[in-house]
Amino acid sequence: MNELDQYLAREAPRFEEDLCELLRIPSVSADSRHAGDVRKAAEWVAGQFKSLGFECEIAETAGHPIVLAQWLGAPGQPTALVYGHYDVQPPDPLGEWITPPFEPTRRNGNLYARGATDDKGQMLTHIKAAEAWIKTTGKLPINLKFLIEGEEEVGSENLEHFLAANKDRLKCDLVVISDTCQFGPDKPAITYGLRGISYHELRLTGPRQDLHSGTFGGSVMNPAIALSKILSSLIDDKGRVQVPGFYDDVSELSAKEKGLLAQLPFDENRYREQIGVAALAGEAGYSTLERRWSRPTFDVNGLTSGYQGEGAKTVLPARASAKFSFRLVPRQDPKKIEVALAKFLRERCPPGITMEIIHHHGAPAVAVDLEKNPFVPAAQRAIEKGFGKPPFFIREGGSIPVVSTFHTLLGVDTLLLGWGLDDDNTHSPNEKFHLADFHRGIKASAYLWQEIGATGK
Amino acid sequence: MNELDQYLAREAPRFEEDLCELLRIPSVSADSRHAGDVRKAAEWVAGQFKSLGFECEIAETAGHPIVLAQWLGAPGQPTALVYGHYDVQPPDPLGEWITPPFEPTRRNGNLYARGATDDKGQMLTHIKAAEAWIKTTGKLPINLKFLIEGEEEVGSENLEHFLAANKDRLKCDLVVISDTCQFGPDKPAITYGLRGISYHELRLTGPRQDLHSGTFGGSVMNPAIALSKILSSLIDDKGRVQVPGFYDDVSELSAKEKGLLAQLPFDENRYREQIGVAALAGEAGYSTLERRWSRPTFDVNGLTSGYQGEGAKTVLPARASAKFSFRLVPRQDPKKIEVALAKFLRERCPPGITMEIIHHHGAPAVAVDLEKNPFVPAAQRAIEKGFGKPPFFIREGGSIPVVSTFHTLLGVDTLLLGWGLDDDNTHSPNEKFHLADFHRGIKASAYLWQEIGATGK
Repeated sequence: MNELDQYLAREAPRFEEDLCELLRIPSVSADSRHAGDVRKAAEWVAGQFKSLGFECEIAETAGHPIVLAQWLGAPGQPTALVYGHYDVQPPDPLGEWITPPFEPTRRNGNLYARGATDDKGQMLTHIKAAEAWIKTTGKLPINLKFLIEGEEEVGSENLEHFLAANKDRLKCDLVVISDTCQFGPDKPAITYGLRGISYHELRLTGPRQDLHSGTFGGSVMNPAIALSKILSSLIDDKGRVQVPGFYDDVSELSAKEKGLLAQLPFDENRYREQIGVAALAGEAGYSTLERRWSRPTFDVNGLTSGYQGEGAKTVLPARASAKFSFRLVPRQDPKKIEVALAKFLRERCPPGITMEIIHHHGAPAVAVDLEKNPFVPAAQRAIEKGFGKPPFFIREGGSIPVVSTFHTLLGVDTLLLGWGLDDDNTHSPNEKFHLADFHRGIKASAYLWQEIGATGK
Repeated sequence: MNELDQYLAREAPRFEEDLCELLRIPSVSADSRHAGDVRKAAEWVAGQFKSLGFECEIAETAGHPIVLAQWLGAPGQPTALVYGHYDVQPPDPLGEWITPPFEPTRRNGNLYARGATDDKGQMLTHIKAAEAWIKTTGKLPINLKFLIEGEEEVGSENLEHFLAANKDRLKCDLVVISDTCQFGPDKPAITYGLRGISYHELRLTGPRQDLHSGTFGGSVMNPAIALSKILSSLIDDKGRVQVPGFYDDVSELSAKEKGLLAQLPFDENRYREQIGVAALAGEAGYSTLERRWSRPTFDVNGLTSGYQGEGAKTVLPARASAKFSFRLVPRQDPKKIEVALAKFLRERCPPGITMEIIHHHGAPAVAVDLEKNPFVPAAQRAIEKGFGKPPFFIREGGSIPVVSTFHTLLGVDTLLLGWGLDDDNTHSPNEKFHLADFHRGIKASAYLWQEIGATGK
């Protein structure tokens, strides 16, 4: 066992304790009541870098701060930029957590907490990998920059502006992000495609205030009915989005890629049971993996109107609103879709209803060209060392909007090396991170710096 | 001024204080956390009767108690049964109340509080009218029974059983209820028709728990979309309910009644402005009054699913639910509609979704034959004395399920003498009762006992 491996083995319990410390900070970026906690998490992360001798700064934005850190002691070697986020999704519905979301708890080899996998745990693997090099050799095999933001879960609203303004400081040869999943347990993966997103909120107002549904019912448009009608009209029974032009730029999978997807060891029954439904669903004419990875979708993320308490209340609600989003695939333009959507919605607003549309955030999809990227073989070897087996090449249905921004602004590709699992309950109650994967991720990351160094610029 | 009128004038301020005392008790029957308050309100009402020398009992039910009181000191005279309720609607949305719902506040001649008009204030007019007779003459002109329940706002679930079991004790010549509206300010009315109701809740479950809409979106049926589709399918764009057979038993208005409705001094623009909408809506082919009084309707009363907090959460919700109701017109059978509805809903449950249907409550519509009821002229005269002008004859869109139960069980008609106004914000924030109407209602009620006495059995 070399010194690096020995260090990783010896320090493993403390790595977990450090992760628990970060997970105890409820850094929910969507909820303004947690603004102080979000900052506290930023400070915690910055503290990690400072203790390793990195140059480090907590950069202010119009929203939550960004932690920037760098170690540039390997002149002539490549520079990798690690992107991650220290903010987390809201923990609702709280009642469904077996143990509280911000009290990290070990069960069955997993660590349960909001943010365990998304993205505190995964992000931390790269910091701990850097620590292992610094503590054992006093240096890193390559130059490393870290950009850890606090608004990923709310659409990274201030990040783009920050990146544009700090382009030179962020110069690098590649970006590394661990915020995705393995293909399955013990099936590490390199993700070469991500879907984009287009997230909106529709708020309908009918009467000035809630009315008695007996006295007034039948004479005034009910905003909850209007909302149901409008949401229904967005998707047909075959799972096709009805916004005009929505599919215009969608590129169908090549026969080759379709074949590769079909060959992946995907167990549809296991997947169905994991989700807990009697039947899967989705756009007609596509397999489950195709639906998740290569097809655009429409989902309602939240509904609210009228009386939601116990029992019955005969109210005709004044308001009804929905949060909803589209997942996009390569070549779909979020801006174009936003415009077409707004037109579609306005045309369907019935008389007696006032419509407000809030465009929360949008980002295009991403696809990395596996054959052209020189760091992919390095990542393959590093993962094999960390996980004891070579990675699968997969796509993922989620979105990491910053990946395309990095490509545009810095001209570099991103390696998406996910250590998570798709049953980690990301964005759901009982989020977890498999602790063995936490440690395998740290090891893979440590060897990644070495392999990238061996690849050279 | 006779002694009765003098008493009413002199005691008016205390009548208001008594009402405020009752309004301060948050007797929200739908919310189990308020069960103690509901009982407290029952005890307060019973205390009123006891202080007047009525025989009085707080009768237990499987739910909230019923206050029963009687004064039978006028042998040979008719017996009137006053029905009312001391429970109130939930006060949500709390943030929209100008002053707190359970802190009664006077503004512009109105008293603002939850229950001010529905039904604490209106109900109390009859108790205060009885008080005026007892205190001035030591007796009442007729026999009076009171039945004041605590579950009207949750469908009077235990009342029917109670009435059936206490049929003999409740024997009477007529029922009097004040839980409706005047036709407008200074336009007192006798209501001869009420709509029925059929109230339901639909709960859809998709995945076992909330999922990440990126990782899973497109491969599993979204329950919020399924809910929107199902609710949409319940009503077409012309405002017609789509449940098969829904209109089978609906009787169209006679040409005569259609003419009478058209002659009422109804100002559609004022009504539209009162509600605060740019345009009214409803079933094609009917006037606004026809839509409110004589046509069945469908309203969504509440929607809930997924993330409802601030900002955006990319969740594919596990559950989506809706509370919704139909208003029914004479001859529609709530049972028949419940069965047809359940079939309609089940047929529309998509694969991958589990459906639960909760039938909250149902009641048929009511129509009183004005020409056959001997107490209508007495009520006309009493209202003219109380309000200084004769009443209009109107229908109302709301439901008072007990009216048809009284007819079936006791074989008597109900006089619906509403002292409220349709902008009283019943079931809405800032519910109010016009204080002048409170006092006019007391006076009308006091003279009603006299006029009924003069009518005889």
